[in-house]
Amino acid sequence: MNSEIIAVGSEMLTPARQDTNSLYVTEKLNEIGVTVAFKSIVGDRRKDVTSTIRTALRRADVVVVMGGLGPTMDDLTREAVSDALSLPLQRNADLETALRERATQWNLPLAENNFKQADVIPGATILPNPNGSAVGQWIDTTYFGYRKLMMLVPGPPKECLPMFDAECLPRLRAVLPPYFIAKRTLRAAMIPESQADKLLAPIYVPYEDVETTILSHSGDIQLTLLCGKPTKEEAENRVEDLATHMEEALEDWLYSSDGESLEQIVLYFLGLRQATLAIAESCTGGMISQRLTSISGASRSFLGGAITYWDELKTTFADVPKELIEQQGSVSQRVSRAMAKGIRLRTGATLGVGVTGIAGPGGGSKAKPVGLVHITLSDAQKTESVECKFQGDRENIREWATQQTLDLIRRRLM
Amino acid sequence: MNSEIIAVGSEMLTPARQDTNSLYVTEKLNEIGVTVAFKSIVGDRRKDVTSTIRTALRRADVVVVMGGLGPTMDDLTREAVSDALSLPLQRNADLETALRERATQWNLPLAENNFKQADVIPGATILPNPNGSAVGQWIDTTYFGYRKLMMLVPGPPKECLPMFDAECLPRLRAVLPPYFIAKRTLRAAMIPESQADKLLAPIYVPYEDVETTILSHSGDIQLTLLCGKPTKEEAENRVEDLATHMEEALEDWLYSSDGESLEQIVLYFLGLRQATLAIAESCTGGMISQRLTSISGASRSFLGGAITYWDELKTTFADVPKELIEQQGSVSQRVSRAMAKGIRLRTGATLGVGVTGIAGPGGGSKAKPVGLVHITLSDAQKTESVECKFQGDRENIREWATQQTLDLIRRRLM
Repeated sequence: MNSEIIAVGSEMLTPARQDTNSLYVTEKLNEIGVTVAFKSIVGDRRKDVTSTIRTALRRADVVVVMGGLGPTMDDLTREAVSDALSLPLQRNADLETALRERATQWNLPLAENNFKQADVIPGATILPNPNGSAVGQWIDTTYFGYRKLMMLVPGPPKECLPMFDAECLPRLRAVLPPYFIAKRTLRAAMIPESQADKLLAPIYVPYEDVETTILSHSGDIQLTLLCGKPTKEEAENRVEDLATHMEEALEDWLYSSDGESLEQIVLYFLGLRQATLAIAESCTGGMISQRLTSISGASRSFLGGAITYWDELKTTFADVPKELIEQQGSVSQRVSRAMAKGIRLRTGATLGVGVTGIAGPGGGSKAKPVGLVHITLSDAQKTESVECKFQGDRENIREWATQQTLDLIRRRLM
Repeated sequence: MNSEIIAVGSEMLTPARQDTNSLYVTEKLNEIGVTVAFKSIVGDRRKDVTSTIRTALRRADVVVVMGGLGPTMDDLTREAVSDALSLPLQRNADLETALRERATQWNLPLAENNFKQADVIPGATILPNPNGSAVGQWIDTTYFGYRKLMMLVPGPPKECLPMFDAECLPRLRAVLPPYFIAKRTLRAAMIPESQADKLLAPIYVPYEDVETTILSHSGDIQLTLLCGKPTKEEAENRVEDLATHMEEALEDWLYSSDGESLEQIVLYFLGLRQATLAIAESCTGGMISQRLTSISGASRSFLGGAITYWDELKTTFADVPKELIEQQGSVSQRVSRAMAKGIRLRTGATLGVGVTGIAGPGGGSKAKPVGLVHITLSDAQKTESVECKFQGDRENIREWATQQTLDLIRRRLM
């Protein structure tokens, strides 16, 4: 069964704003076995909305219309649906009363125009909106002899998504054949993108009934496996089966079998080893600490550390000898080692990390180009360093350095 | 003149991926006076793409089709345009040769299917693609008696956007009446959203020819003013005029008259005052330092600081007395004052900042609820503290605390 999602609103035809509801609605539709075949975005002009709805009714079985249900002159979805279906709107007395009561309760002015929110397509089921004044409508109708399911929901995400979940999905489920979905998210770090594809494509391509999506960003690869079947067991077995093969292929690049972030995994291993962590960051300027502390409960294992952006602070906070910085330069393996050891001893952490590099765009040289980053991990047993060369702009280089550091910590703790 | 943007590709009908090219293309079209009236997203099915193109030709003067120009079986834009216009494709000999040469040069296999990239709509101008193998096409045609301008461009952003800029815009400009756009971006911090609207709406609403867009996020408001006129001067005058009124109304909430970020402004003022800054962060966990160091050249004024996530580190790095933490608790005004003073004296910065709070979701109490944040700024002359209560989830609270801290620094330096 296929569907079309229509987003109504002129603001979504500007460079600054984009429909995002449809991503959520797509996910939910897919979960009950409905494919999204088209998405349309249309401005607040009655004739444009009408023609968009007509086009959708011709080509899709399920049509979700989001937005244009408010009380203003610009809100024209009800009128457009009425035009498209050639069914005149009927004013609903109960809704009219509810609008009056709401206005009194909240002490809102009520213009004649506001009552258009009580207009309903004949035969439609009214969908309550606990988060706003605009009710939705569920329309089970025929269009040129074909059964069509239409739902009108409000545009603001806080009203749209809860209404879609509570009112539209159960109704769609009741109409559609049984369909269960299984899903797994695997995540891997620092695997070269070309290698990931070469490694994984031969594994997932034969699983034609499992939809595999690969997202990659700054050294992080996220693989989502999705399978829908008439029974839950069938769906889960297929996903499990494919996931197991992929996990084997990814070896220790894989850090998560169930969607957890790299920072979550690092904190999990720190907890498991009863280890504590402190970091001295230069070029990443707080990005590593920020990712770790974005996780609630990080304080159980992450002590904190220092942003040693100026060289003097490398000495003040991590006891890096001044002479070492003068001799080697602040971006050097030996300085990153001194940072890691220094921050560990200063804070009493079991694991200390030092990161120093050149994020650019300025400050590079032939010997030490932009993108050069030294990372050192130090505990009581050993101190290990890695020299990296990252590509891209300042933001990319900082993101890659952060990801690489977190991954090195994970590997050390594994 | 109105337009429709069509994005072709099944991956954009999944929950994980969204067309973003259209935001850029919309901005560029608006700048030459072309409105975007519709956006459509369609999967890689020939008949769906054809019907989408036909619909677009019926309702728009300018049609931009993005994607589906690659060499694979799934790339069907050329075929669909041919179907929609009822013009059979012609294989272009020069393009065929170029494809052969490219394959030899890069040592790529060349299947018969690949030559479809040499197929051209009769009368179309070929648009070169320096960033990939898929050329674009510029089609100046008539559809049921109306002149229509169509451009086919590749889907990957790195190919799509440069081609649109270099090949499509100049051709559109040559056809359209003269149109110049003026633009200004104002930014303000920590103004309550309801107050911003109450203050600004009466000012910008009467300027019907200036499009005002307001984006707000975690204490940051960005106002974009856009005006298009037949001459550059007219456009600039209108925008200047409105911007001046808005700047006055925003008073010292305004931090930028030309789009700079708050961290850029803070660094600018630090440079101007020849001041240096060091920060001791607890609940923000590196987020403030991270924002400052995202700006190239931050090291001129930002020394660094400490992530004092554990209480012991408040003492180690910022000399906060142990007893003070025991008596007052780590989230208290006096501890934030000690952090600010301590980090300043330790680092030798002219301005020291201490931030401590409860980001949640756990750790709150009646006396010290989740969202409570103490921020202190300290220099040789004075030490000032602010107590804040922020709403939202952990991420929101950390973002608000970061924004508030940067804004307090700006106000101190102004």
